[in-house]
This record gives sequence, C-alpha cells and structure tokens, in this order.
Amino acid sequence: MLAEIITIGDEILIGQIVDTNSAFISKELNKIGVNVYQITSVQDDREHILTALKDANNRVDLVLVTGGLGPTKDDITKQVFCEFFDDTLIENKEVLEHVKFLFEHHVKRPTLPSNLMQAMVPSKAKILMNDHGTAPGMWMEKDKTVFVSMPGVPYEMKHLLTEKVLPKVIKKFKRPFIYHKTLLTYGMGESEIAKRIEQWENDLPENIKLAYLPSLGRVRLRLSSTNTNEAELKKAIDDQMDVLNEMLKDIAVGFEDETTIQEQIAKILKEQNATLSLAESCTGGAIATEITAIAGSSQYFKGSIVPYATHLKSDILGIDASIIKKHTVVSSQVAEAMATQCKKIFKTEYALATTGIAGPTKGDAADEVGTVHIAIASPTGVFSEKFSFGNARERVISKSVNKAFEMLLKEISKN
Amino acid sequence: MLAEIITIGDEILIGQIVDTNSAFISKELNKIGVNVYQITSVQDDREHILTALKDANNRVDLVLVTGGLGPTKDDITKQVFCEFFDDTLIENKEVLEHVKFLFEHHVKRPTLPSNLMQAMVPSKAKILMNDHGTAPGMWMEKDKTVFVSMPGVPYEMKHLLTEKVLPKVIKKFKRPFIYHKTLLTYGMGESEIAKRIEQWENDLPENIKLAYLPSLGRVRLRLSSTNTNEAELKKAIDDQMDVLNEMLKDIAVGFEDETTIQEQIAKILKEQNATLSLAESCTGGAIATEITAIAGSSQYFKGSIVPYATHLKSDILGIDASIIKKHTVVSSQVAEAMATQCKKIFKTEYALATTGIAGPTKGDAADEVGTVHIAIASPTGVFSEKFSFGNARERVISKSVNKAFEMLLKEISKN
Repeated sequence: MLAEIITIGDEILIGQIVDTNSAFISKELNKIGVNVYQITSVQDDREHILTALKDANNRVDLVLVTGGLGPTKDDITKQVFCEFFDDTLIENKEVLEHVKFLFEHHVKRPTLPSNLMQAMVPSKAKILMNDHGTAPGMWMEKDKTVFVSMPGVPYEMKHLLTEKVLPKVIKKFKRPFIYHKTLLTYGMGESEIAKRIEQWENDLPENIKLAYLPSLGRVRLRLSSTNTNEAELKKAIDDQMDVLNEMLKDIAVGFEDETTIQEQIAKILKEQNATLSLAESCTGGAIATEITAIAGSSQYFKGSIVPYATHLKSDILGIDASIIKKHTVVSSQVAEAMATQCKKIFKTEYALATTGIAGPTKGDAADEVGTVHIAIASPTGVFSEKFSFGNARERVISKSVNKAFEMLLKEISKN
Repeated sequence: MLAEIITIGDEILIGQIVDTNSAFISKELNKIGVNVYQITSVQDDREHILTALKDANNRVDLVLVTGGLGPTKDDITKQVFCEFFDDTLIENKEVLEHVKFLFEHHVKRPTLPSNLMQAMVPSKAKILMNDHGTAPGMWMEKDKTVFVSMPGVPYEMKHLLTEKVLPKVIKKFKRPFIYHKTLLTYGMGESEIAKRIEQWENDLPENIKLAYLPSLGRVRLRLSSTNTNEAELKKAIDDQMDVLNEMLKDIAVGFEDETTIQEQIAKILKEQNATLSLAESCTGGAIATEITAIAGSSQYFKGSIVPYATHLKSDILGIDASIIKKHTVVSSQVAEAMATQCKKIFKTEYALATTGIAGPTKGDAADEVGTVHIAIASPTGVFSEKFSFGNARERVISKSVNKAFEMLLKEISKN
C-alpha cells in the first residue's frame, strides 16, 4: 500500500517556510505500515493542483493533501477538489455550529461571512471535524484512491491526522508492518564504517535495507524492513542490529528510534535523582533550550547561566579574573572553572559549560574561530575537551550542542 | 522559466529528517528570478528516480537534484544519471586530487577505495567542484532541460549552490525579476484582515499576488510579482505595500523580507549603543538561542540566566522570596522583579524576563497551563504583560518567544 503527500502553498515553493508537515505525516504513516512513495509540493494554482491530484491518483492508494483551506482568497483547495471530484459545495451544519462556537468562546469576535464559508464543503466528502480550528478535514474517494484534505497549520493538521485521519486509514486499508531501527554513532566517517561492516552488509537479507545518514560529526545507520508478521519483522531487524552494534561498539552510543539523546539523559538523571545546570557561553542557550523542550525537565534541570560578555564570567559565575587573563577566555581552564562554579551556584550534581568562538570574528579570543571547550563537573571531579568545529557560525553552535550532549550522556552513564 | 527540485532519500519519506534543503534552494532561485514550479521528494529507488527525472524533463527548464551522492551502497544518484543520460562513469582527475587532498589535510586518515570512487563521474557531466566535501556537483543537459546534481548534506549543498550552480544558471537562462515583500502583523485574524482590506485586494492588478500566512498569533501578508523591468516591478509592489501598511498600521510591525525581528532588534540596540540581558524561566533559553544565532550579538547581548527551579529565582536572581510566596512564581510581580534584578546583575539598559507554565503539568504554579508573564525592564521603568497560550508545551514556548521579541522591539523602538 502506497501513499503520497501533496503540500499546497506558494510559501513552500518560494522558500518562505520549511515544510515540516510532510515529515510529521510520513513518520505517522510509517508507524501504521503505510509506505510514503512521494512528497509533492505544488503552487497555489488550480491547474497545478489538479495535475498533482491526477498524477497521484495513478501512483498511490492514499493521498494526503495539506494547505489551501483558509478563509481568504488564496485558499482554493476546496474549489479544486470539487472540480476534481465533479462535485459542488454544500453547507455542513455541524461545521457551521463548530465555527460559531469557536468564535463565541475562543476568538471572542463576531463571525464574518468568510468564516462561515468554512462550513461549505464538497457534497461527496466525509467530514473530519477539526477541534482546533475552523477548517474541517475532508475524506473523498476516486477509483479506489482515497484523498484526504487537511489544513496546513501544523498544530491543527497534527491533531486532525492522529485523531481523525489515521483511525480511518487503519480501518480502510490492509497494511503490513514497517519497522525502522537506527543506531547512532559518533567519531567515524561513513566510508570507514562501510568498510568495517562490508561483509555483514553484503550478507544482509534482501528485504532488509541499510541506510547511512551522516551529519555534523555523527553517522546514523538505519535498518528498515516490512513484513505482515510483526514479531518476525522485529526479530529480524533486532538480530541484525545486535550484530551491527557489536561490530561498532567503540563508536555506537544508542538507538535513535527508542529515544533521543536528550530523553536518554533525562531518564538517567531521573533514575539517579541527580540534577543538572549549565553555563553556556558560545552555545548561547541552545543546550538549555533542547533540555527544557522536554516535559518534566524541571525535575532534573535547575537552570542555566549564559555569561556572554567575558567580564560576566567573573561577575556572575565568580571565576577568578586572573584565570581568564592567564589562559584567555576560550581555554580548558576557563571552561572547567565555569562548570565548577556553575555546579556550586546551582547546587547540582552535574554542570556542563561551553566556551568557544562561534565566529565569524574572533572577539576577545586568541584561538581560531571554531575552537570550543566543553567541560563537565560531576560528583567525582571536572574535565574538559577541546574541539575545532570549522568556521561556519551555525555549524559551530550545532556541533557544540551535539558534542555536549554526547559527553554528558557518557559521563552520567558511568555513575 | 520554471525549475523543479528533486530531493532523493528514504530518510525524507519516512519522516526521519525534515527537508530543509528545498526551502533554501527555492529562496535562492527566487532571488535570481527562477520560479520553482514543484518540489518532489522520492525514495532511494532506481525506477522511482528515473521516473521523477523524466517527469521533470517534461515540466521545467531546470532540475536541481539533491542527495544520493555519498560513498556508500545506498547512494545511487550517479548510476541513475548515467542511465537517464545514456552515459558511463569515468574518473575525473581534479576530483580525485581534491578527495586525496581532503583526506590528507582534513580527515587525516588514508583514503579507502569507496572515497576514491567519488571521483568517478558521468562522462558528459560538467563538474562543479565541492570545496567542502568529496562529492562533486554535476551539470548535465537533455532536450534543453538542465539537470544539476548536488550532495544532500546541507552545508555542502549551500556552498555548491550559491558559489557554483547559481552563477551558471544566471549565465545560461534569461530570467525575469521576481519580487516578494511581506508585511508582519500581530493581533488580528486573517479573515478580519481580509475584510478590512477587501476593496483594495479586489482592485489589485492581476500580476500582483497576495498571500495570507497565519501562524501563532501573527499573520504575514505577502505581495509577489514578476517583471522583466526590475525598477518597475519594485515600484509596483512597494506602492501597493505602502497602501496596505497604512490600512493596517495598528497591527503592522515591519517587513519580513528586509530583516527578521531579531535582526531589527540587533540593529536598534547597536544604534542606541544599548545592551540586553535575559531571565528566561518558561522559555528555558530559547530567546537567548535566537539572539546568539546572529553574528555580532556579543556587541549588545550580555547574557542570560535561566532560573528553572523556583528557589533559584531568589538564590541567583536575588528576588525577595516573600514576593514569590505572596504572588506565586507565575505572576506579573515575579516577572517584573526578574527583569529588574536581571538588568541590575548584568548591568544592561534592557532586561527581558519570562515566567509561565509551559505544561503539560502545572508544577509549583496556581495558574492554568499556558499562562505566561513577560516583563521588560528599561531605562524608564519596568512593565509586564500576561498571556494565555493554550495547553501544548511546544506552542506555549514558541508563542512566548514570538511575543517576547514583539514586546522588545516595540519597547526599544520608543527610545
């Protein structure tokens, strides 16, 4: 069974927004055994949308369309659906009541004619109520292909997809099981990994697919397969993954599909009843942002200081100014002093600190752009590592964040 | 002149990564007058890639392909290009030297046979050297359509596109000028805006397109047009935008295409020679992250404290514990005290503070999930605003960040 995602909107094709909806939809479809064959992004143009619908009709069994359902003139998806399905718009009472309810209780303004137009839907459509917005989802069928239209607002689309669309897809289609498992590795290039596992890769059963995903100092290795027997499928992948993990045990840090590295850290800190604080200079809050994005992080995360200006490393973190003078602000000594002071101030078991030169200019530092020191203070002491992350600001920050989480996971796993 | 982007990789179609390359490429193409007609993401599958290339050949003049150029077995783009162009792979000396150079000076390991295979390229291809990686770009032509293959690693692709591909596209194709201008508004829904500007929208010239882009409390209004005369084009859009801006002056905060709100804030703070510090509780570092992502931010950004645990608001920020006890930790009083103390500690002209309940649970707070107070301390005093941002953690954080930047821009613009 194959699916296609069609995203409608000029904002995607002029690069004004990044299409994050497709990744979310793809992931959710994979979970229930639906293979996403293609993602197609098209302009807000009648002819173009019609062509995309026709092409998808010939290619796949399920077409998920997002976008073009708003109340303004540039939203034309409903009209094009009517044309494609040879249908007309009729008023849906339930949607009308819902729109009125939303305006009365949430928007707290009188409705406009354009808001009430949201209740006009193709007569042949099954309506999927949108609890988080005024535009309903629509389910229509043609030549055995199912077409579903959803709003493009990510929050509304996500709820509609998981709560209304997927249950209907599960009921309608026979699907195999799809299973992916991804091993995270750090510190070795993809070609070198490929060489080490060459024999094993050549011997992989035909129905198991291996993919290499390199990015910023790490390589992810994904095994994927499909089977109508879920237990058999998982066993086949898990067994191969055990072999792979053993071959790469010096560089493997865990499986991505189970949990992210931030979630692994959260789990261990909670188990140890331990707490964490941060002193982020060159990373400027990016590590704290990823930690606090996780619900329940206040259980183990106490807080962070971003002493961006050099003198604040003394003024707020209380680092002896002579250390900074002697070793410069981007040094292992300062990184370690930052971690040690941070641990003391926040009264935490662990503290992580970053200091470096994200670029493009060197600022107060003597070292080259891209030099970063990351230090960790733990119940057993303090240590740091030095890195050279190149001269692109964005990459220096991203790589520092990745490396910080990797070091932290390693350190807390010891205890 | 039309273009299509084809991104190759199962990781996109199973939702393991978000395709950010397409947005970058689209934006860059638009800048030089190339209209991106479609974006197509396909699986790592020979037949599928061939079909996508054939379809694109019939649709557009320029096809930009990313992905599938790595040194491992799942990378098949070069082989498929050979098949599509009826070509064979030959060794390119310049690429071979480049790969050897990269390994000797940067990777610092001996090359493997798979690395040297990167120098094998289709014989008909014009090679675009990749200064940041081993896989070169390739430029090939068929039936007047140009096909360009680029690596999928964003950093390598960006350099290759802007430094090697775009200059050739500019030389090869006659292009009109494309111009977009986007007005940022806060505080009014899209249907209400549409009603207010209805007459003007109806009277817009046919060749000027208006789009509404609603998201998280703001609506962006984009005008787009195309013309072979650049001055005429800009004048037509600018004139219409002046009218629109005047009609919406109570909710408009600036133009997006010129600069982001973070860049506008940076510019004003630098002009005023003023500095900023942050005390981020519920936003957990997300505001600092966006500020420090801008090169040169150390000129005006002094630093940040994330007092995530309640007691740290007293211990580190020095807020009187009785204020927290009396008003609860999520209150205007605490937000304002945080901003005031932060301004004092960091010795800055402005300080911004957030305190709220991101959810999903209420923690120490008495208020509902989604309640957020944002305070700003300035040279003239301190004030705060209270918001209800719903019960989805991710959205509460994003909306708080947006609103914080909006309040800050408004405040610093006064002085």
